[in-house]
Order: sequence, then C-alpha cells, then structure tokens
Amino acid sequence: MAGAAIACAAPQAFVAQAQAPDAVAPSEVFTVSSPDGRTRVEVTARDGQPVYSVERDGKTIVGVSKLGLRFAEGADLDRGFSAVSANRAVVDTQWSQPWGERTIVQDRHEEVSVRFASTSGPERAFTLRVRVFDEGVAFRYEVPDMGERALVDEITEFAVDPDAMSWWTPAGEFNRYEYIYKTTPVRDMYRVHTPFTLKMDSGETAGPYVAIHEAALIDYAGMWLDQRRAGILEAELAPRHDGVKVRVSGAFNTPWRVIQIGDTAADLVNGSDIYLNLNEPNTLGDVSYFTPGKYVGIWWGMHINKYTWGSGPKHGATTENTKQYIDFAAENGFSGVLVEGWNIGWDGDWFSNGDLFRFAEPYPDFDIEALSDYAASRGVELIGHHETSANIANYEAQLEDAFELYRENGYSTVKTGYVADASDLVFHDDEGIRRYGWHDGQERVVHDLKVLKKAHEYGLAINAHEPVKDTGLRRTYPNAVSREGARGMEFNAWGTPPNPPEHTAILPFTRLLAGPMDFTPGIFDLMPNGEDDQNRVQTTLAKQLALYVVIYSPVQMAADLPENYEANPEPFQFIKDVPADWEQSIALDGEVGDFIVQARKDSNSDNWYVGALTDEEARTVSIPLGFLDKGRAYTAEIYRDGPDADWKTNPYAITLETRDVTASDIIEIPLATSGGAAIRLIAE
Amino acid sequence: MAGAAIACAAPQAFVAQAQAPDAVAPSEVFTVSSPDGRTRVEVTARDGQPVYSVERDGKTIVGVSKLGLRFAEGADLDRGFSAVSANRAVVDTQWSQPWGERTIVQDRHEEVSVRFASTSGPERAFTLRVRVFDEGVAFRYEVPDMGERALVDEITEFAVDPDAMSWWTPAGEFNRYEYIYKTTPVRDMYRVHTPFTLKMDSGETAGPYVAIHEAALIDYAGMWLDQRRAGILEAELAPRHDGVKVRVSGAFNTPWRVIQIGDTAADLVNGSDIYLNLNEPNTLGDVSYFTPGKYVGIWWGMHINKYTWGSGPKHGATTENTKQYIDFAAENGFSGVLVEGWNIGWDGDWFSNGDLFRFAEPYPDFDIEALSDYAASRGVELIGHHETSANIANYEAQLEDAFELYRENGYSTVKTGYVADASDLVFHDDEGIRRYGWHDGQERVVHDLKVLKKAHEYGLAINAHEPVKDTGLRRTYPNAVSREGARGMEFNAWGTPPNPPEHTAILPFTRLLAGPMDFTPGIFDLMPNGEDDQNRVQTTLAKQLALYVVIYSPVQMAADLPENYEANPEPFQFIKDVPADWEQSIALDGEVGDFIVQARKDSNSDNWYVGALTDEEARTVSIPLGFLDKGRAYTAEIYRDGPDADWKTNPYAITLETRDVTASDIIEIPLATSGGAAIRLIAE
Repeated sequence: MAGAAIACAAPQAFVAQAQAPDAVAPSEVFTVSSPDGRTRVEVTARDGQPVYSVERDGKTIVGVSKLGLRFAEGADLDRGFSAVSANRAVVDTQWSQPWGERTIVQDRHEEVSVRFASTSGPERAFTLRVRVFDEGVAFRYEVPDMGERALVDEITEFAVDPDAMSWWTPAGEFNRYEYIYKTTPVRDMYRVHTPFTLKMDSGETAGPYVAIHEAALIDYAGMWLDQRRAGILEAELAPRHDGVKVRVSGAFNTPWRVIQIGDTAADLVNGSDIYLNLNEPNTLGDVSYFTPGKYVGIWWGMHINKYTWGSGPKHGATTENTKQYIDFAAENGFSGVLVEGWNIGWDGDWFSNGDLFRFAEPYPDFDIEALSDYAASRGVELIGHHETSANIANYEAQLEDAFELYRENGYSTVKTGYVADASDLVFHDDEGIRRYGWHDGQERVVHDLKVLKKAHEYGLAINAHEPVKDTGLRRTYPNAVSREGARGMEFNAWGTPPNPPEHTAILPFTRLLAGPMDFTPGIFDLMPNGEDDQNRVQTTLAKQLALYVVIYSPVQMAADLPENYEANPEPFQFIKDVPADWEQSIALDGEVGDFIVQARKDSNSDNWYVGALTDEEARTVSIPLGFLDKGRAYTAEIYRDGPDADWKTNPYAITLETRDVTASDIIEIPLATSGGAAIRLIAE
Repeated sequence: MAGAAIACAAPQAFVAQAQAPDAVAPSEVFTVSSPDGRTRVEVTARDGQPVYSVERDGKTIVGVSKLGLRFAEGADLDRGFSAVSANRAVVDTQWSQPWGERTIVQDRHEEVSVRFASTSGPERAFTLRVRVFDEGVAFRYEVPDMGERALVDEITEFAVDPDAMSWWTPAGEFNRYEYIYKTTPVRDMYRVHTPFTLKMDSGETAGPYVAIHEAALIDYAGMWLDQRRAGILEAELAPRHDGVKVRVSGAFNTPWRVIQIGDTAADLVNGSDIYLNLNEPNTLGDVSYFTPGKYVGIWWGMHINKYTWGSGPKHGATTENTKQYIDFAAENGFSGVLVEGWNIGWDGDWFSNGDLFRFAEPYPDFDIEALSDYAASRGVELIGHHETSANIANYEAQLEDAFELYRENGYSTVKTGYVADASDLVFHDDEGIRRYGWHDGQERVVHDLKVLKKAHEYGLAINAHEPVKDTGLRRTYPNAVSREGARGMEFNAWGTPPNPPEHTAILPFTRLLAGPMDFTPGIFDLMPNGEDDQNRVQTTLAKQLALYVVIYSPVQMAADLPENYEANPEPFQFIKDVPADWEQSIALDGEVGDFIVQARKDSNSDNWYVGALTDEEARTVSIPLGFLDKGRAYTAEIYRDGPDADWKTNPYAITLETRDVTASDIIEIPLATSGGAAIRLIAE
C-alpha cells in the first residue's frame, strides 16, 4: 500500500488532504471573537468542505475541523460548499432563574451566522450559527426545510491536542453513563461521552482547560465523541432503532456544539452557565409547585440489603416504615421523603423487562392516601418514584394515570428511573412493533421532553435517573430539576469496584459542568457491608459533608439511614443547615481529579457555605474569604477531618471548629486522604 | 438507581435476566459434537431468546450467548422463539485446490440445522445451521424470504472469558486493518477486527486457544466485535452509507460465525482450513491463467523515496527502469514484475480523491506494449497495479477497459489498492449521488466480488491491498490469490512506529489464520533511511528469509531493490529457491507474539522448507524432522542468525550451514533477538 501520507498526517495536514473532487475557488473566511477578545473562531470552506477552527490568545485550541451533515437519501450538506455571507450580533444581557446555582445569569457573547451555499452539485444551503463567550465557543447547524430526511452522519470534528490529558467515561457501552472516570492522554480513548474534559499543556503553565459538550438537545440524538485518528474527535450520534441517527422533518436546528475554555479547572466550573445561555427561556411559565429542598428516603436500605424493592418480609416501602421516615424528616427539617419499591412490578425479573411495572398500583402494604395525608400533617411531602427499566412504551401508556395519582396525593417531585442495558430502550414503532433504541438516542430524547411537559400539566418536577445527559434544558423546562447520569453513591454499596477517592474530585469538572446531579450524598456509616467488605464509601466523614456544597442539586438527599444520623448529631447539623438553593456559586480553586474548593451563597440568607474535598492525596487548602461582604463579621463553623483522619484507617475523625472571620481572612484547612471540609459562614 | 444486578452480573446471569416479556415454555435443547467428541455446542431458546453455547472437554469456551437479527421495519428475529426441530448431517470428505498451503483439504464435521419458530408475536421462522469440526465451531443464520429488509443489528454474542489474554487490532478506526497488534486481557478492548485471537488459562496448562472470525462474507457487511460488557463480544456490522447494516432481498444466509479452538497456538494455524471448508467449491472453473510464483517490482523504491509514484525526475515506473527489473527477474528466476505508479492519477492530491485515477492510461514514459513484449521475451510477466483510493465508482466505470488493457498485454495478476480513510469508500447510490461507505461494509464486499468475477472473464487474478478481510472466498473464487489486510513491510519504511519485532510472531496466529497475505518480505537493507532513522526493519536478515515460509502467499515478493540482493548472493539464494506453492503445511510449534516454527512441503518436488522466527527475545528452537519421509536422506541448508546476531546491533550476521539429516533428527537452532532461521531440506 501507499499510505505514508495518512499514517504520518497531522490533523491539519489531513484536512488539507481531504480535498473534495469538486474543488472550488477559495471560500470567504469569517471570524468572530469573544467579548474579551481572547478567543477567536474562524469559519470557512476548504475545497468545498465547511470547516472551523478555534484559537485562544493566539494558541490553537481546536485545529481546522470538518463540518457537515449526511443523509441516507438526497443531497448531503458537507461538500461542494462555500461560505458566502454572515450576519452578526452582540449580546450582553442577564436573566433570572427560579432556582439554581445563582439567581441572576449573565449572557455575554458575540455571534456570527455564516451562510454556506453550494458551489457545485445540487443546490443546497445551510447556516452555521456561532456564538463566542469569554467562557467558550458554541455553534449549531440551522438547516432549511428539505422535507423528511434521514440523518445518518453528523461529521462535525474537534481537532484537539492528542497529547492533552483527559478525563472520560466510555460511550456505547452497556451501563449508560455509569463508569469510573478514566484519566488518559486524549489519544488513548476510543469513544467517550460528553462533557469530555481535557487539559492542554502550554509548557510553562498548565492549561488551557477545555470541555466539549452540547446544549439544547431536543428532538435529536445524544452526541458521543469518537477518535478514529489521533486527536480528531468526531461527533458520533447515538443511533435510532432503525440505524438512522436522527429523523428530521422540515427546517431544523441541531443542538449546540460547545467548547468550554478556561485558564484553570475552576474556570470550567464557573463558566458552565454557557449551557443555560444556549437554551431558550422558560416556556413552562409558573413552576412554583416546585421548591428546592432536601429529602430523606427509603432507598439506601435497599442497596445495603436491609430492605427490598419488592414485596415480602424486608419490603422497604411499607406504610409503617414510611411513617417513620416522615417523622424523621419532619423532626429534622427535611421537606421530602422518597419512597422506592412502592408500586407493583418489583417482584418479577424486571431488568430490561419493564412491562411488569404498574405506576398507579401501590403494593397493598403501601397506603398512599393515608401516607400523603400524614406527610401533609407533618409539613412534609412524599417524593414519587417511577422505575421504568427503560420501557418507555409501558411508561407512556400509564403516564397520565401515574401523574394523576401523584397530583391527588400532593406530590410535587418524581424520581424517574431507566435501569436497563444502554441499548435496550423499549418502545413501539409506527407499526406497533417492539423496538430497542439507545438510552440517549432520539427516541429517548423525545420521550424525556414528553414526560417533562406532561409532568408540568400535573404540577410535577422530574428528577431523572439513568437520564439523557443534561444539556441545560432546565432553563426552558424548569421542572427538570435534577438527574443522575454518572456513578452515584449506590456504587459504594455494591459497585465493583466502588467509587474511588478521586471520583468526586473529577465530577465537578466533567459531569457536573452539564448541570445538577442527584448524587445522594451524606452516608455516615461508611462501611455498611462490614469492615471486611471491599464495598464501602471511600471517603472520610467530613468529605461526605463537603459534597453538599460541591455537588449542586436543588433536590439534595440525606441518603443514609435515620439511625446513622441520630447517632452522629454534630456532623448531621451541617446537613440540616446547608441549603439546596443558591444566590451565587463560585469555584475558588481546584484541579481535575485532585481537589476542589467550592463556595456558594444561600438564596434565603446572607450566609455562605464552602465545600472542599480531595482525592486519595492528603493536602492543605487555603481559602481566601474575599467573596464575603467587606467589613462584615461572620461566624465560621468549620467541619473538617480530625488530626489523624484517613479514609482507610480513620475515616470518622471529624472536628468542628468555630471562629470569627471577615472577608480579609484566609482559612487554611488540612484535608485527610480522600478527606474534605464543609464550612458554614453565618453573617452577623 | 437500582442497578446492582447489572453491575455485578456474570455473562450467564445476564442472559438469564434478559427475559423477554413474551416469555414462553422452555424450548427444546439441541446439541452437536465434533467428530473427536471433545467440542460440544448447545442450541436452544431461553425465555424466547435464541441462544447457543460451546464447551470443550467439559470446559466452557463460549458461555450462553444471544442469537438474532433485527430489522428497521417488520418483525425481528430475536425474541419470542422456540427451537422446534433439527436436521443432522455427518460429513467426512476431502477436496483439492488449484494452489494453496496444501493440495488436499480434509472436511470432517458434524452438522445440526436447528429450526427456530415463533411462539408469540408475528409468525416467524429461521434456521441456525451449526457445523462442529475438531478444529472449531461455525454457525450461520438461514433466513426465509421476507421480501426486502433493512438489517440494522445482528445481535450474535460470543461470551468469552474476560480475563483471557488476547491479540487484536482496533475496528472502526481510520486506517482499516493496518494497526500494530495490542496484547491485552479481553476486558481491555472495545472494538476489534477478526480474526480475534485469545488464550484462555486453564490454570495448570495454557490454553485452549480460541480465534473468532467469519467465513464466506458475501453480500453482507464485515463483522467487528464490540465489548460493551466484560467478556460479552457482540457482532457489530460495518455500516452502509445509509445507516443500515445490510440490505437483503428474499431468502438469505449470513456469513458463517466461526470459533476456532486449539490446545496450542500451532493448532489454530493448522486448523485454519475451517474457513475454506465453510465456503462453496470453485464456481469459476479453470483458473490456470494463474500460476503461483515470486515477483520483484518497482514499489519499495517509492516507500524509501528513491522513486515517486507520480511523474517527474524520480518517476519509478519508466520503461527503462522497468526493463532493468525485468532483466533482474529473468536472471534470478522470478516470474513477475510489479510496477506501481504507471498510470495517470498519481500527480494530484489523490488521497480520498480517487477520481483522479485513469486505469487504461499509462504515463507517457511507460511503454506498456513494448514492456510486455520485452517481458515475454525474457519469460517474465508484468503484474498490474490499480490504486483506487477506495473510489469504487471511478474504478467500476473503467473496469472493463482496465482489464482489457492488461489482457492485451499478457498480464495474469493485478494488485489492487484502496488507500483511503476507512469510512471514505466512495460510490454512487441509485440517485447517482456520491456516497461514503466503509472499507468493509456491504457496498465494498459486493464491489470486491464484482471485481473478482470480471477479472476472471479477462483471465486475471486479484491481489487486493487495503482489502476486505479474507474469509476463505478463494475456494469459491480461486482468482482471489492474495491480499494485504494488516501492517505490511512498507510500515518499516515510514510507519510511526515501524512494525515491532513481535509483529510477525503475532500475524500467524491472527490475520494469517484468514488466508494468504502479500506481506512483501525480503528486505536486505534493513536501514534504508540510514542508521539514525527510527524507521528501519526491526529484524535480523535471517528473519527476513524465514518470512517466506512463515507467511503463506501464492504471490510472494522479493521486495528489496535488485542491488541489495546482488550484494548478498548467499542469503538471496534461499529466496530464489523457496517455492510459493505447497503440497503440505505444518505449524510445528509457536506461541502467540513470541515465536513460530512452520514447515511446508514444495508442491513440485519432495523438498521441505522450514521457517522459524522469534520476537524481541532470543531463544533456541528445536525442530524434530519427523515430517520428513522415513528413512530418506535429506540435505539441510540452514540459514540462521550468526553467533553474535542481534536485530539492533548486529542484524546482518547470518550463517549458512549444510548438513545431512533424516526424519529422526532434531535440529536445534538459536534465534537472535527478533531473529529467525530458514531451512531448505533437499530430498536425495
């Protein structure tokens, strides 16, 4: 063979080589820069191939990369094009959200809409809308009406440094998003989920940090990233059951392809509003039926085999047991009580067999009416649960009855579940035939939006587990309050292996960039299976408290058994104090996979909270309190690892220190191995 | 979430869990065993899901694994089935081939054809035909006429030991099959090509060895193996341009899914006739226009930048230069001269741009008529070359003219080339629109067969480079004489990195199981880019000779420049002596990735040849000559590494020893690091 050129080709070299046979006169080149002028995007066509590139401070972030869409039939949108014209816009505005990491969100960007028109082949045109923020770059395809089309390939590329270090979970495997993160150079991965985070090495200084993800995933397929050539990441769309990637009808826009860029790891966290800004404003209107809050529930007990989801002697979701949880919630200021295993279906072999579930039929030993009355009398609300095993046909058929039952009983939040093989999403096609789609394919994306809209009709908020990844839809549909979409606490009960110490030091810079996560923190009995069992929580107790500030969710669980909290009243006090809704959030410091220091301001008081955690390495973090009101006195309640704390040998050692501080102070806190600290700063 | 069951599920456990909602009464269980009774296959349906399993000597080789086919529209063939009846056959026959590793091939197997019928859902039926040889297991789906169908997923699984060591190249990446082999436990791979070879560990003894591949790939898509769950390998078919995997019409059979099993690594090599036995007999009839032979050519010179493919001062394919190669071939007993870069198209930027190539238009400085006359006068034949850059539309449009030109000029063999990105196979669909398929998708598979049939009409044999993998089609189409389909010698000239010492110690147990490879061995100047260049041949000189026996091909190249052979007449003598066609072949010993000892008997004399080579480790191999005629005297000409040979520091040290031997002798030969030995055993 004669492949020398390929084998040795650098990304740019390759794009230059991939010359279309219908080569055309050089296209115009359109550029747009971020408000701060540091980030610059170039859009043009090379030999008829639409391409783009991104640089920051003159340094290449994304090299010349292909753009285009291909269809099963009819003309493609990828070759024989020229960039012919552009419209521009400058936006500097702000908007408020009903709940979130911050009350007011700033949207500042420059936009160029580049029109591509065919210069050879059949007459075609499309627009690439590009928005450049100080925090990153986003673009989407805007395609005119070409009738019904079967999109088979989005050939969007991201040409990045193959030697950059990266943090990722595999895509296309069976367990959806729930894998331990791998840390490798970009070149060593094959197919990954987004957000995909990488750290370039500028030599003298680390960074810039880059995260590739998407925003506004609506009636389209989730984007995976394939690497078939070192450093060239290609958009790979989760397939439909029929092999097509996306079926479109009439004019359509793709989701936004987003490239977050930051000088530091913390910049990625602080810049993640970009996903919200790329979504449309609230279309639901009033969602006051939902109030951010903390909850307890009948859940962890199943994972440690104290209870069962199904009926029987160990059934967790009994009327009596639920009442005790309601009492515990009421006595400790929790607003919600989650109950899993309350409905018919759990007794069969339900995995990938969701037809068994009945969403309006409680088990006989779960008196939903009596319990909802009792909960109301204690000022607490029950939180609903719908496990579908990804059988969306069965779920959609019962959706109205299921939601009506909850409305009648005063529920306002439902935790949904889609536990099944990633490729076993079950639905019925137009012929009524049972089909199997992907957990993040177009069929599921459409289903999720249907559920959100229907839930809103019934005054219900959705907390989806085994979800489609978050792409900022909560701005448009604010009843999408939280979701899972990564390895949560339950893996510490039975995961093989459990979550490693670095897990929660990676999440803030990867999965959590996308939005809230119902991680269900707060396990106080760190060895629920006994000291000899490999399945334990690989953190200190103090790190469990830190998670309440580090991991944002408007529904935040205190996941452990009530007795474990009652046995540890001092650390439990922090969980009782910490809010679930924020006026402001600031990542102060961090390094992907090593540590993070996160500060947030309560939306209902002047108090601030700080969470800091580390991986398997002990380290001391210094926290400048400059974010506090100048000149104001605060009392700092500092929950931190005890002097000899160590996640393996002495995880329970925790110290509560109280001291007076002001904005000019710097708090130095030693963190144990896999340790953490949680600070409550009370404004005087 | 509640995924404990999944996260912890063992393969069998999982299949048991994957219960169809339309569960049915237990299906009948059909079994079939190999002639030697060691290998046993079980076929049945579990809860309506067709499954199979394979055991040998009572040990599980393939655990309970799913079977089935899914379509874009209409009923699927995977759930709601029962195994209802079976037909049986016992075969013990032999057949002869016009050329090959052996003249007579033995076909001994037991067969069961299991009929699956639907027990719920729409009425459906299909047959699973299973053949069990002593050397392994094969099965295929035989599907009745269901009209035009779009096959979107073959869900065939192979549940193997995730901890077995395995040797593989990645599938779905850009460079087709041309990657350095990775050696990892099965669990550490994501998507691989076949043959996929693994070595189980029975504790006390290594092995059994298993290779998963396919046979008779006709009008279907190439099979990749995906691992989405540890140890569960799933058939993943290379996609068509339209997202569908395979378009079928009427009744059809899939290719055979083959599981080779051996006690030793050598057993896999000696058992690879299984692929031929699973193909139909010769349908072309007389292919006497092709005679196995050795060739030289204008090729390596381009890879080391002595010549260019394109026109200009360094153009390799000139009339004058070709005449010198013809003279060299004639003087040294080579039957063919390959000439690359002889036709119009090489001057442009041809990569993934094959429209440039003109297959019936020689460069002005290549006088094809004069040269073919001159070659004939010297008793030599020119070997044709067609580089398409995977633009099959452009090639098929010129096929008849291209082949006619060769027939007129007395050619009998054509080397084809498809250098392009694996996903840039270019053709035109029914609408005449340019489409991009996969290098091993259905469109390419269909193209290759069209080329073979057309070539036969013109009395031409095909040696395909950048081919679809070999699946034994040479039995049915004996003008498919050789192909590439792995990293060949050219990577040593410019590959980054070049082929490592273990490369040719892995090939015999992986790629070469599938069939002949035109590896183009025999490089004598091991540092063609100079001593300081990382691109060199990482072997000793003696190992180059060993390749002529280890790697089977009926067209075997002496790849180096004539002057390098003239400068080394003694080792060159072995290349002149060694045949390219065999009466018998026996792998005597070997270990995947470590070494191999291969013996072959000349089909035109009573002489035997032995090739032995090792990886980066020096080792001594002992070769019992029991394969020789008992009581007969032989003269052994042994070309082996010199006493101080070392591939890095002293690669040229080679010793020729001649001694008299008989079948009762054992030859002990020390092999240097990345060394080898070549033995000619002359019958007296």
